[in-house]
Amino acid sequence: MKKLNVGVIGLGARGYSMLPLLCGMENINIVSVCDMYHDRTEAGAALVSGSYGRPVAAYDDWHELIASKPDAVLVMSGWESHVEISIEAMRSGIPVGCEVGGAYTVDDCFRLVSAQRETGVPFMLLENCCYGRYEMMVMNMVSLGLFGEIVSCEGGYRHDLRTEILYGEKNRHYRLNNYLSRNCENYPTHDLGPIAQVLGINRGNSFVSLTSFASKSAGLNDYARLHSTVPEKLRDAAFAQGDVVKTVIRCSGGQLVTLTLDTTLPRPYSRGFTVQGTRGMYCEDGNYIYLDRDHDETMHFDWPKRWNNAEGYLKEYDHPVWRKFLEDGVRGGHGGMDYLVYNEFAVCLLEGRPFPITVEDAACWMAVTPLSEISIKEGRTVPFPVFR
Amino acid sequence: MKKLNVGVIGLGARGYSMLPLLCGMENINIVSVCDMYHDRTEAGAALVSGSYGRPVAAYDDWHELIASKPDAVLVMSGWESHVEISIEAMRSGIPVGCEVGGAYTVDDCFRLVSAQRETGVPFMLLENCCYGRYEMMVMNMVSLGLFGEIVSCEGGYRHDLRTEILYGEKNRHYRLNNYLSRNCENYPTHDLGPIAQVLGINRGNSFVSLTSFASKSAGLNDYARLHSTVPEKLRDAAFAQGDVVKTVIRCSGGQLVTLTLDTTLPRPYSRGFTVQGTRGMYCEDGNYIYLDRDHDETMHFDWPKRWNNAEGYLKEYDHPVWRKFLEDGVRGGHGGMDYLVYNEFAVCLLEGRPFPITVEDAACWMAVTPLSEISIKEGRTVPFPVFR
Repeated sequence: MKKLNVGVIGLGARGYSMLPLLCGMENINIVSVCDMYHDRTEAGAALVSGSYGRPVAAYDDWHELIASKPDAVLVMSGWESHVEISIEAMRSGIPVGCEVGGAYTVDDCFRLVSAQRETGVPFMLLENCCYGRYEMMVMNMVSLGLFGEIVSCEGGYRHDLRTEILYGEKNRHYRLNNYLSRNCENYPTHDLGPIAQVLGINRGNSFVSLTSFASKSAGLNDYARLHSTVPEKLRDAAFAQGDVVKTVIRCSGGQLVTLTLDTTLPRPYSRGFTVQGTRGMYCEDGNYIYLDRDHDETMHFDWPKRWNNAEGYLKEYDHPVWRKFLEDGVRGGHGGMDYLVYNEFAVCLLEGRPFPITVEDAACWMAVTPLSEISIKEGRTVPFPVFR
Repeated sequence: MKKLNVGVIGLGARGYSMLPLLCGMENINIVSVCDMYHDRTEAGAALVSGSYGRPVAAYDDWHELIASKPDAVLVMSGWESHVEISIEAMRSGIPVGCEVGGAYTVDDCFRLVSAQRETGVPFMLLENCCYGRYEMMVMNMVSLGLFGEIVSCEGGYRHDLRTEILYGEKNRHYRLNNYLSRNCENYPTHDLGPIAQVLGINRGNSFVSLTSFASKSAGLNDYARLHSTVPEKLRDAAFAQGDVVKTVIRCSGGQLVTLTLDTTLPRPYSRGFTVQGTRGMYCEDGNYIYLDRDHDETMHFDWPKRWNNAEGYLKEYDHPVWRKFLEDGVRGGHGGMDYLVYNEFAVCLLEGRPFPITVEDAACWMAVTPLSEISIKEGRTVPFPVFR
């Protein structure tokens, strides 16, 4: 089988942990790895060469990796370098698979789109949550009309990251600086990606305007004061980031999208994926489906019977991509989503097919971060840019 | 035992259905009933006199009931007459227990507060959800500091009312006109009441501003077209009310309150009561509690173990009001909430104690409706009035 020779840029928590999965994929061949921290470059190279049983090129400078001309690059660095690296790769003729994260400026989103349009080099945002099993089943059910006309979608990135943000004296994580200096919806794509696909954004529908609201910041300081593992200097640090950020996006099709960022308070993980139409709904919290077709009003108050009933719809409505995947045997992290998104990237490039997630999609989803920052700072609704 | 002689005004779905409970209460004596529809007045009078075994005064005109000078009135009419009836009762020296519903204008809220202040006659909003068992347990846990500093609260009135709104040719329900002519958060108090109590609104904290967003209106028309029970004229009616309305309220204490109205799409019932602090949270959907004290990060992804775990906290943290209530034996509708709110009303009046829900609380909660209407219509954030 033909393999895609890829260079992997960024070997932090995400990049390094994906190497074993990538090494095991039959259509991907890692030819080079890179990180700005030499210790990470060495560790990544050792892992890949150990897995393949042969040496792999290793760089501390991503410019050199791009100059070495792999078939494609996977950009898995910190949020702040995604756009810069992606643009240089495209300008060098190297197709890009870019990991997720919000943008820093709206201008960066425009630059990303321009670089892709001007070069014609393929770019895909590697949003694994677009490949979640229930997200895909819901997309399938929406396209079959089972939920009727879609009216409202909700999602969130609700993940207690206090330990990660405040970790140790040698914290090299880009999140810490973000939480100290910015107040915004800093991680919108996990929830917004599948919602945008459900709503057909950039395919006849579009985001019109965005309004964000931030609560006070209290979670990180309280955690820091109670945990001796947190560096002294962070105990009374002034964090700019509010604990909970609510964002409401209006769509040209009349739908509302509501996003919640909630990463510095104690809570269970949830992306809160919720899709409501005139004939039915799906809700990730509780994993339930409610359809006019299958339910009646006597069930309205009957919570326990609804709990996890979405499982019962898999047999009939599991997405074709997932059916095939399960026949082949589930592989990779996050319940198979990671395998599926990298596989899609490789297959599209090897077969010359367009990516299902376009650069305009990426720009729209990533732009939520700087737009929310403006909305919160200036206390106003901001129009959504048109990335065309 | 001393009884409060009350007149009941409004014998529609709510008023009529509460009569058996009220007739059975040891501190309440219904002396008169009233509805603008004579058939309802007759049915209500028959129910009460049948229960007591003696006649009861019956009026079609609420002015006459007030003029008959009961000890107090219970205002259980449609939303649109709550303020008018309450004000006339107070001006006549009759204490008022008023059922819930949003206001029609901000001015009505000011008039309600002025009437109470000028007359000194007691007024209480009968918000039964402030007496829900889990709502009260959460208030108890918040006051004990178990959730730390509160940062964000969410709630909703998520109740599929399509059948009720579109019911039959002889629809006398005030909801239909509201859905035809208004676009707003039309029923905020069930969710906002307990949240305001958790946040200490009007007790050192306050609502600062409100912003609302409405989705398109599609649910009622789709339902009407599919159901032959719905009158022909409503099939293509232009409903003003959006299916989903999101409202974000900023508090002077830095907290965010997010409300959802969602009453015209298929879905299970939920008030979505959610309270998040720096050390823990409660969520009604799933009925779970997550505390730093009791949980750790390995449980973040462990949904099934969290399902309904709030039940396990009742033993230690059930609210004293509920402990006593259960010892006495649960009575009345909606899991005891109705009994508790009417009992509180009667006990406070009989013992001369102030109501726990003040007229300023009522004005704040009810004002969300007209404020949301302005916010949606004008696409802007509106400042919250100060009712003092």
